[in-house]
Amino acid sequence: MTTAVVGLGYWGPNLLRVLHEQDDVTVRHVCDVDPERLAWAAARYPAVGLTTDIQDLLDDPELDAILLATPVHTHFDLAARTLGAGKHCFVEKPLASSTADADALVELATDTGLTLMCGHTFLYSPAVQTVKRLIDDGELGELYFISSSRVNLGLHQRDASVVWDLAPHDFSILLYWLGENPDWVSAIGRASVVPDVTDIAFIDLSFPSGVLAHVELSWLAPSKLRRTVVVGSEKMVVYDDTSTEPIRVFDAGVTYRDPETFGEYHLSYRTGDIVSPHLDNSEPLALQAADFIASIRSEKPTSANVAVARDVVSLIEATERSLLQRGALRVPAVAGVASVST
Amino acid sequence: MTTAVVGLGYWGPNLLRVLHEQDDVTVRHVCDVDPERLAWAAARYPAVGLTTDIQDLLDDPELDAILLATPVHTHFDLAARTLGAGKHCFVEKPLASSTADADALVELATDTGLTLMCGHTFLYSPAVQTVKRLIDDGELGELYFISSSRVNLGLHQRDASVVWDLAPHDFSILLYWLGENPDWVSAIGRASVVPDVTDIAFIDLSFPSGVLAHVELSWLAPSKLRRTVVVGSEKMVVYDDTSTEPIRVFDAGVTYRDPETFGEYHLSYRTGDIVSPHLDNSEPLALQAADFIASIRSEKPTSANVAVARDVVSLIEATERSLLQRGALRVPAVAGVASVST
Amino acid sequence: MTTAVVGLGYWGPNLLRVLHEQDDVTVRHVCDVDPERLAWAAARYPAVGLTTDIQDLLDDPELDAILLATPVHTHFDLAARTLGAGKHCFVEKPLASSTADADALVELATDTGLTLMCGHTFLYSPAVQTVKRLIDDGELGELYFISSSRVNLGLHQRDASVVWDLAPHDFSILLYWLGENPDWVSAIGRASVVPDVTDIAFIDLSFPSGVLAHVELSWLAPSKLRRTVVVGSEKMVVYDDTSTEPIRVFDAGVTYRDPETFGEYHLSYRTGDIVSPHLDNSEPLALQAADFIASIRSEKPTSANVAVARDVVSLIEATERSLLQRGALRVPAVAGVASVST
Amino acid sequence: MTTAVVGLGYWGPNLLRVLHEQDDVTVRHVCDVDPERLAWAAARYPAVGLTTDIQDLLDDPELDAILLATPVHTHFDLAARTLGAGKHCFVEKPLASSTADADALVELATDTGLTLMCGHTFLYSPAVQTVKRLIDDGELGELYFISSSRVNLGLHQRDASVVWDLAPHDFSILLYWLGENPDWVSAIGRASVVPDVTDIAFIDLSFPSGVLAHVELSWLAPSKLRRTVVVGSEKMVVYDDTSTEPIRVFDAGVTYRDPETFGEYHLSYRTGDIVSPHLDNSEPLALQAADFIASIRSEKPTSANVAVARDVVSLIEATERSLLQRGALRVPAVAGVASVST
Repeated sequence: MTTAVVGLGYWGPNLLRVLHEQDDVTVRHVCDVDPERLAWAAARYPAVGLTTDIQDLLDDPELDAILLATPVHTHFDLAARTLGAGKHCFVEKPLASSTADADALVELATDTGLTLMCGHTFLYSPAVQTVKRLIDDGELGELYFISSSRVNLGLHQRDASVVWDLAPHDFSILLYWLGENPDWVSAIGRASVVPDVTDIAFIDLSFPSGVLAHVELSWLAPSKLRRTVVVGSEKMVVYDDTSTEPIRVFDAGVTYRDPETFGEYHLSYRTGDIVSPHLDNSEPLALQAADFIASIRSEKPTSANVAVARDVVSLIEATERSLLQRGALRVPAVAGVASVST
Repeated sequence: MTTAVVGLGYWGPNLLRVLHEQDDVTVRHVCDVDPERLAWAAARYPAVGLTTDIQDLLDDPELDAILLATPVHTHFDLAARTLGAGKHCFVEKPLASSTADADALVELATDTGLTLMCGHTFLYSPAVQTVKRLIDDGELGELYFISSSRVNLGLHQRDASVVWDLAPHDFSILLYWLGENPDWVSAIGRASVVPDVTDIAFIDLSFPSGVLAHVELSWLAPSKLRRTVVVGSEKMVVYDDTSTEPIRVFDAGVTYRDPETFGEYHLSYRTGDIVSPHLDNSEPLALQAADFIASIRSEKPTSANVAVARDVVSLIEATERSLLQRGALRVPAVAGVASVST
Repeated sequence: MTTAVVGLGYWGPNLLRVLHEQDDVTVRHVCDVDPERLAWAAARYPAVGLTTDIQDLLDDPELDAILLATPVHTHFDLAARTLGAGKHCFVEKPLASSTADADALVELATDTGLTLMCGHTFLYSPAVQTVKRLIDDGELGELYFISSSRVNLGLHQRDASVVWDLAPHDFSILLYWLGENPDWVSAIGRASVVPDVTDIAFIDLSFPSGVLAHVELSWLAPSKLRRTVVVGSEKMVVYDDTSTEPIRVFDAGVTYRDPETFGEYHLSYRTGDIVSPHLDNSEPLALQAADFIASIRSEKPTSANVAVARDVVSLIEATERSLLQRGALRVPAVAGVASVST
Repeated sequence: MTTAVVGLGYWGPNLLRVLHEQDDVTVRHVCDVDPERLAWAAARYPAVGLTTDIQDLLDDPELDAILLATPVHTHFDLAARTLGAGKHCFVEKPLASSTADADALVELATDTGLTLMCGHTFLYSPAVQTVKRLIDDGELGELYFISSSRVNLGLHQRDASVVWDLAPHDFSILLYWLGENPDWVSAIGRASVVPDVTDIAFIDLSFPSGVLAHVELSWLAPSKLRRTVVVGSEKMVVYDDTSTEPIRVFDAGVTYRDPETFGEYHLSYRTGDIVSPHLDNSEPLALQAADFIASIRSEKPTSANVAVARDVVSLIEATERSLLQRGALRVPAVAGVASVST
């Protein structure tokens, strides 16, 4: 299997590294418009070919797959050209900059029978998968709400909002955990530093099952916070990606018995042990690369992953529409047929 | 100065304790409908008179002031009778269960020239006052947003929502810090355990100065969290009431220079020292009791405190109205003339 | 049952409070040489008699028991007079300022058949008792070592070292957990601030079972630390008295298999779940007071408690002797017959 | 400048990486006895020559310097051969397995005029250097004591104790900070898992200036702890290498005024702000590599670094001697002339 990486910003070098650790996978090319980035790659990976033109990759008959780690606005064009050239394609998240583009890519992949995959790396995180299992096994009881904060002093981006930058993480995790799309989304935010570039956002999502989700995103925060709380009737989970104990399960809850007499109700509070389950320490990025390779080899061209990736784009679009109205209107969340199946 | 405490639930015993530590202040009575609570008080404070009927207090010509620590729905009636009997009145937060009632109490206090005060204890917290000073001195620069979480597995109340229970803390702090009332409030929540009793709420508030505030309240959370982040252009503050370092000031921010050429902008990030200022360790409840006594002695019948307390009630009402519509409508936040002056 | 409290410094007021919460127990007197402290008690507990002379208590034929919360150097004299007057006696920790005095008190209690008890409150802590159970049940496997830190910027005492002040906590806990006295103790310390008053100490203890214990004590430390680590072959425990999760059990360890061939060995590391068990939130001081009352009522004059209290004094003496030699000599730890039986 | 790396265990690959990032530095060879490790290097750095025999490096007339990242027991032999072949030499810590060997290496470097350097990377850590500056500038006042814990569930090593494994970090930092060698060291430990392999150690060190240091080392601990507390009369510092705020400076202390009358003294406690200074986020390993290259280029053959490295070996030897006697004897700490000059 031969691969190439396009874009050597933040994610490209990481993809390069994990591809080098896959068995029977060769990285034939790296591509970036910046010669300095290419020089960096040459020093680290002297065996890899360099180019500033993705066409060189598309024209290489020996090349099986291209991994795109370029800015969001280029995803659709480059991915469409990759699939059009008959090569499997991995796209960094989010899949595209509009639902229409995302749909077009999914259709193209279906038509060509090529593998299309989106880099929602968190779905390969042992911590995220542990929470998924706790939910599916019913250990949390009835899910009440999920509250997530993803904030720190972060890189403002010229042509994207904090929602396009950070929401793909939380949205993909929520869709994966809940297995359903929200009915609607409502968001309020602020462009604090750069005019018209939203840098903080508070997002509410309401799901058909009754679960309420809240997501706080910010490029302006004093310290890094990656904290998601999942509250169910039986147990509660705190997921903190930055902690040495990323998952903590609290055997705590409230039990409500139906009122025996009119106007009365009975509650009992339960506080039990707290458990930090031992997690596999595999690197999600490596697992993701392995899954991409395996998908190609197994000729399973599309997967649940792409469906989530498409819905994430739709959800971001809905969030941006609500932001424009300062949260005043709830926006139906996911256009088209709900397609999450995990 | 002679005083009496009505209601020996959570706050009453604390008021009893701090009143006993005031100079030249006597507690003549405690009043509760529950004989067991009176017996408890008798064991602890044998010199204090006991009664189950507040009328005994109102009829006592020697009594100067009554402190009410009873359920919210009783505040208006008991406070009105207290002022009507010519006695100074302290009411636990929130001041009343409707804006109309709050307004009536303020008017009654004004008319009688008696001191009326509401137990927004956090306004006496050295930590809260430190943040107020940092804001007023301009050390934080332009304020961007405030995000607050006040959650833990807490006591569900039969006749109140989590908003009536917990929002008085955050709302009073926000009004005190910002010195202005919000333009509107929007809230979404859920009655997870008991039908029609909201136990989680996510509240957005938009202030005239442009500050965006977000408040998360919950009776359903795995661990206690009292965390408020104040983000300004120059510095950021984390206020955590449960920490041994309640205030942490981050010399961190983003500097934006106006674009020199169309479409470009320049940002620089600054990360400097983090300081946990030393705080006075006075007990806010004792300071509050002292201020109530001092207000009576100085014959300053009403204070900024009551204005905040009234606006807090109005803000809770607006929040509840928005909750009823599942956050779909923004509700003008504070009815009547904005009255915060701090 | 009638009681009196002598000494209204730090512990006296707390004893007063928990005695008032015991059923069928009356506090007849408080005694302190400082009239201001007595005035404080009078304001809080008007029904309690006041005196500056302990003889008034000894002469009161109606009085059953005296609780001493006075400086260490007074313990022997006051406790001996209490027992001599035919009254049950509770003494704050440490029991006495020398092993000889401690032995004399134990003998006096035995001879008179009166209850003598020492305020090693930590032995009533649910957290300490949980660790005791984990050890006794074999859940930790073979115990390897215990390392404890008890430090913060603390009150220097005129006539005592940090060892006399803080070691009673750790020493009593160690003797209780291990059920054996150490073979020897070795300590090094420093008198940093006041000449000849040791304010930091590092103490090593070696136990017959092979367990090694280390105790760090300091009045000079930037932040409060109460952290004891218990390491066994199967599990490890972190006990932190200041945490909301005082006990954390780590299912982590090393398994050693006997070498199959000369010079080789095989180790495997195991890292499993971490559990914070739910603990009873009873107040240790109240449990201790109840146990004192129960001991009197059950006419069990002496208990394991006094044996530990006596050995703690002996261990402090040994530590002080080792300190004098700058840790150069290991000092046999507990004079006389090892008497710990828990 | 041409270099080679010997040993591709833990440190070798890191040295390879940072050497590739140095300007005008080429890595000509890597050497390891394990062909799998060489294959790994070949995949990553195809331009680098591979060999299992260090003699190939010694015989290469184009090679300027060799970096040794091999087991401790090989350091002396390989370093002596490197210097003997006229090549500059970098040795991972500790410098050698005996003081005699360390002395011989230092002498050989002096005689040949070649650069000899030891990988005490922590001395290049911005956090360690910040504490050094605080001490030297007198900001901490008179230094009282330093207490350090370096523990976690770690890799047992077949032919080394936890002291040889972990003490080089703490000992090098202590010698660097204090600029003096201890008068004596005393240590107690235990071989808990593997016979005769010490896996926990408690080490006391007494310095001529009066500073007392305590170092706790363990391969058996439930969670990673890297915490060093430096206590002075004016300020105190907590250095935690694993924290996002590695240095915290506490403006806390005790002030002692000379007694005015016999037997009395006056203390006042001061608790002020806590500051986490912003630290340069340079990678210490890269700074160290740069310093090694710069030392060669500037023809400063030996540096303070080697003197510390030699004394660290001497201190480890003294610690091991004290351990053999179960801490019963204090061992003079550093043989020969105290040579630390920083």
